[in-house]
Amino acid sequence: MRRLPFHPIPPVGADADLDRDGAKHARVLRLRDGDEVELFDGLGRRVAARLVERGKTLGFVVLRDLPPRAPLPPRELVLGLPKGPDLDAAIRMATELGATAIRLAITERSVPRLEGETDEKKLARLRRIALEASRQCERDLAPEIHPPKPLLDAAADVDPSFDRFVAAERADAPGPTVRAHGAAVVVGPEGGFTEGELAALVALGFTPISLGPTILRVSTAVAASLARLSV
Amino acid sequence: MRRLPFHPIPPVGADADLDRDGAKHARVLRLRDGDEVELFDGLGRRVAARLVERGKTLGFVVLRDLPPRAPLPPRELVLGLPKGPDLDAAIRMATELGATAIRLAITERSVPRLEGETDEKKLARLRRIALEASRQCERDLAPEIHPPKPLLDAAADVDPSFDRFVAAERADAPGPTVRAHGAAVVVGPEGGFTEGELAALVALGFTPISLGPTILRVSTAVAASLARLSV
Repeated sequence: MRRLPFHPIPPVGADADLDRDGAKHARVLRLRDGDEVELFDGLGRRVAARLVERGKTLGFVVLRDLPPRAPLPPRELVLGLPKGPDLDAAIRMATELGATAIRLAITERSVPRLEGETDEKKLARLRRIALEASRQCERDLAPEIHPPKPLLDAAADVDPSFDRFVAAERADAPGPTVRAHGAAVVVGPEGGFTEGELAALVALGFTPISLGPTILRVSTAVAASLARLSV
Repeated sequence: MRRLPFHPIPPVGADADLDRDGAKHARVLRLRDGDEVELFDGLGRRVAARLVERGKTLGFVVLRDLPPRAPLPPRELVLGLPKGPDLDAAIRMATELGATAIRLAITERSVPRLEGETDEKKLARLRRIALEASRQCERDLAPEIHPPKPLLDAAADVDPSFDRFVAAERADAPGPTVRAHGAAVVVGPEGGFTEGELAALVALGFTPISLGPTILRVSTAVAASLARLSV
């Protein structure tokens, strides 16, 4: 059954029009009146729906709720706050690569300290980016985004039973091999961690892993780290 | 010795001013008159230079050529051409993550077929992006970017002694474990490969690897694939 993102999904028996992206996507997939599709909202709800041609647009009727699928294995990202545009890209890529929680962290070299009212607005924006990316990459549930905390507090919030790593610039340590159980990785801001921060993370139980010999942007480091956790 | 990107590097004994980014970076690093630095051009040349204060700007004198460093292990990316902005991001991230060659491929689901004069201009632009990314991530040498060829021709250009993989959407195959020797990965455009293309790549000796259960943008798939090759 083809999958289309839609939000908010109406109750069973109710009908609505697909939004513009959904209708376009349905046309690309050559879906038409009478076809049964799955709608998912990125917030964990999935329903079966029947498409209904409505003149120039495509609508649907919700047929029934679908049972939740097996959740993604826990993959947490502790992210030292980088500059604006790269933060957005990092959130999007972390979502695509299966992060189940993103814990924002204030580090010594973090430039933007989200504070006061801006903080709330930025957090809301990041959550929208994660939700949008979840729908695009067909995740049933968006990652949780936790508000900024000092680095070691954010790192200490990770379940200590998880395999825990910290991406260290140019470290020589080999990569992790992690499977279905929980795992987490800490990625620093531009300029990386200070030696003191890295030592404190290691003391907390995080193992340094290398992302290679080059200097990575934060978003690239996030993608590479999470890809390594799913090996 | 601190490293700064500069291009074109003048001959030994000659002097020049740092460009604006270089001068700014030098200030951030608190470098000053008399400090010795390494300049690299992303084309393989490295020199030692001494900084010279010149009023408002910072110049340098080239002292001597430095021997080339050990090259990166061969990591090739065969890339099904995606849409414009995501192609640029894919080239940038592949460069950051150590791709030594990028072979552009025309696939059945590739949208933009670079052809004629536009082809040359686009290729020149992609090479500039790779060179710029090389300097930012402190690689000594930018990846080679090969002009578009039909998918199987591009894949056949990869040295058959390399470990060769193809990123297959939602494949269940485990990830590769590759070390210092050569490796290559093929990444499809939006919408992935057709079944025929995938079968042909497997027949050519490429092993399918999974990048997880989600649908990835091309640039994210490139980052994840190359990160997996360096485990």
